[in-house]
Amino acid sequence: MLRAAKNALQVEYAIRDVVLPAREMEKQGIEILKLNIGDPCAYDFDTPQHIKDALIDAVQKGKNGYSPSEGIPELRDAIVAREKRRNNVAYTPEDVCVTTGVTESLQMLYASVLEPGDEVLVPGPSYPPYTSLAKLYHSRAISYRTKEESGWQPDVDDLRKRITPRTKIISLINPNNPTGSVWGRRVLEGIAGLAGEYGKQLFLVSDEIYDEMTFDVKHNATASLAKDIPIVTFNGLSKIYLAPGWRIGWTLFRDHNGALADVRKAYMNQARLRLCASTIAQHGAVAALNGPQDHVPKVVAKLKARRDLAHKRLNEIPGVSCARPDGAFYAFPKINALEEPGAPWRNDKEFVLDVLREAHVLMVHGSGFDSTFGNNHFRVVILPPEEEPIALGDA
Amino acid sequence: MLRAAKNALQVEYAIRDVVLPAREMEKQGIEILKLNIGDPCAYDFDTPQHIKDALIDAVQKGKNGYSPSEGIPELRDAIVAREKRRNNVAYTPEDVCVTTGVTESLQMLYASVLEPGDEVLVPGPSYPPYTSLAKLYHSRAISYRTKEESGWQPDVDDLRKRITPRTKIISLINPNNPTGSVWGRRVLEGIAGLAGEYGKQLFLVSDEIYDEMTFDVKHNATASLAKDIPIVTFNGLSKIYLAPGWRIGWTLFRDHNGALADVRKAYMNQARLRLCASTIAQHGAVAALNGPQDHVPKVVAKLKARRDLAHKRLNEIPGVSCARPDGAFYAFPKINALEEPGAPWRNDKEFVLDVLREAHVLMVHGSGFDSTFGNNHFRVVILPPEEEPIALGDA
Repeated sequence: MLRAAKNALQVEYAIRDVVLPAREMEKQGIEILKLNIGDPCAYDFDTPQHIKDALIDAVQKGKNGYSPSEGIPELRDAIVAREKRRNNVAYTPEDVCVTTGVTESLQMLYASVLEPGDEVLVPGPSYPPYTSLAKLYHSRAISYRTKEESGWQPDVDDLRKRITPRTKIISLINPNNPTGSVWGRRVLEGIAGLAGEYGKQLFLVSDEIYDEMTFDVKHNATASLAKDIPIVTFNGLSKIYLAPGWRIGWTLFRDHNGALADVRKAYMNQARLRLCASTIAQHGAVAALNGPQDHVPKVVAKLKARRDLAHKRLNEIPGVSCARPDGAFYAFPKINALEEPGAPWRNDKEFVLDVLREAHVLMVHGSGFDSTFGNNHFRVVILPPEEEPIALGDA
Repeated sequence: MLRAAKNALQVEYAIRDVVLPAREMEKQGIEILKLNIGDPCAYDFDTPQHIKDALIDAVQKGKNGYSPSEGIPELRDAIVAREKRRNNVAYTPEDVCVTTGVTESLQMLYASVLEPGDEVLVPGPSYPPYTSLAKLYHSRAISYRTKEESGWQPDVDDLRKRITPRTKIISLINPNNPTGSVWGRRVLEGIAGLAGEYGKQLFLVSDEIYDEMTFDVKHNATASLAKDIPIVTFNGLSKIYLAPGWRIGWTLFRDHNGALADVRKAYMNQARLRLCASTIAQHGAVAALNGPQDHVPKVVAKLKARRDLAHKRLNEIPGVSCARPDGAFYAFPKINALEEPGAPWRNDKEFVLDVLREAHVLMVHGSGFDSTFGNNHFRVVILPPEEEPIALGDA
């Protein structure tokens, strides 16, 4: 057999890796309730019509060719205006690069920065590409603790202890995936302070793709709090604009004193190499950002009701406890039963596969988000309508 | 300044890098004729209506969510059927992975295979990502000679000499970009024979994105000629289906004896990590492959007339000679004047920048496609209508 790259063989993505056994069951005619993927469009959400219309108009008017590698000017302007409006952060269009989703934003950033042996700090638990993509660049993601007992807020002291001379990036995911935690202003300022102290060797990456999805809790953009340190922010169309399959994200460079000049250069080198993000979807994104936002409070209200129900029902399951998620569309309950003697499962992955087999419900094992801080948990999306029969209680 | 990754800083993409000086001129109000980018939709070509309709239908019907990482089943089936129909090569849907364009196909393949110090053999000259992306994975692309005097056919003897124990991949681009060369059956069989000899360490990658665009010359799919060696083939929607901005490509694994099993595993690990290619564009691609193909001969006829004119006019320019391109939509003329004493330009990049400044026509220097075999040339697209004022002769 021909040799594959060792690091690429080690890349894992628990959220979709669990799909493989579920698919085998589907082949046998078994219907699976899929609560593994954060896709609102798989339930009763759909892209608002005016956003669809803008994409369709671009298709019909022949805007089907390549576009500038950094994004169409109208979209970069719309992103700048949005950041000013929402977060009072002043960017220029040159600070924006439109991408094929936040995963590409992250992949190009890691490739721009990481050299073999480097380290990135990521929330424990966190969205798996933050860890897996580091492996692709021969680097290591190190998790810093987020505290379940305080609603999965980051532990800044733990974070500080994990900085080494090889640390190049501190990643924040806020609201976090998989915990649905919305990080407080103090904690964010604490992390920003740390980044300032180590400003000669590292910078902050702030993933804010769920920023509009919070339930009675204010979301603070990291760049709005930390005004004098370099920050790279990720956001996109997938979540609140309900178009994840269109694959549009963006990267924002906040860089006061040119500290990120080389990183931006390396980033744009790659952006040109892969040509561009979907041109037609970018035209849709312009309408999303500049058009009416009426759907936003409606989506949030729907999600909040579902969060309330999921949170209540999850805590009613014997052997399970769940911190309340304040944002995004996930819950990350603990399987207390795993810590009891004679537990029927050895670990969270066995638990999740057992629920799949017995209850035909697909979730993701917490250790897939972090082998330390995510262990003995599972992630479940709170997206289905309340009346959807969630079989968890019967598992 | 914070340190960027050295290899990422070295990544170049001549085709878009030349855009930067052109953009400066545009800011001064100068109109530039852009002959640098291979985008038919920038001229009088547009996506066929039935393909647009299929995408629009998917948008309207709410298919705006994520899709399977390897592609929607209908598209994988359509790709399998297309390969059987056109090339008489039998694939299964499991051999197909839909991507965000051939660049992503290549990037994920390189990441799946290359370890620091590895080597890939690429045509000289060739499409820049084949060289640049190797750098991102700490590997080296080595060019093998293609012979201008025989219409840029590969030199198999030269290729053989460049194989070392670190060679992991031999890339074929056929029709080639930037030369428009369509490679003969004998030459392909020669390369396949070589790959067979070195079958324990390397395999072939065959980029066939321009396969439908040949002018009275038959294109042979590499996998149709070399039946007993592992081959990875790239193709996509961008060129003959005239939808480059939709960003849909695909990767085909031809693997008789499981030699590629680990490579495929590493590849699919990454495919899951980046979620999926555009779902709505995939629905368009199904219509493209399964629907009417009437536009194909029309596009080819239009291109052939433009090739004829460009080829004739280029050879009429004193100091320039141009081998006839038999496919794709590029010509790759030689700047003989550069070899004469007292030439006004020191190299092809100076020539190209001078043409930009003086004639307001943007082309790409040949050395951007290969510093040895592409040197003293330039690439020009043959896409504009015949009546478009091509200012080259006046430069």
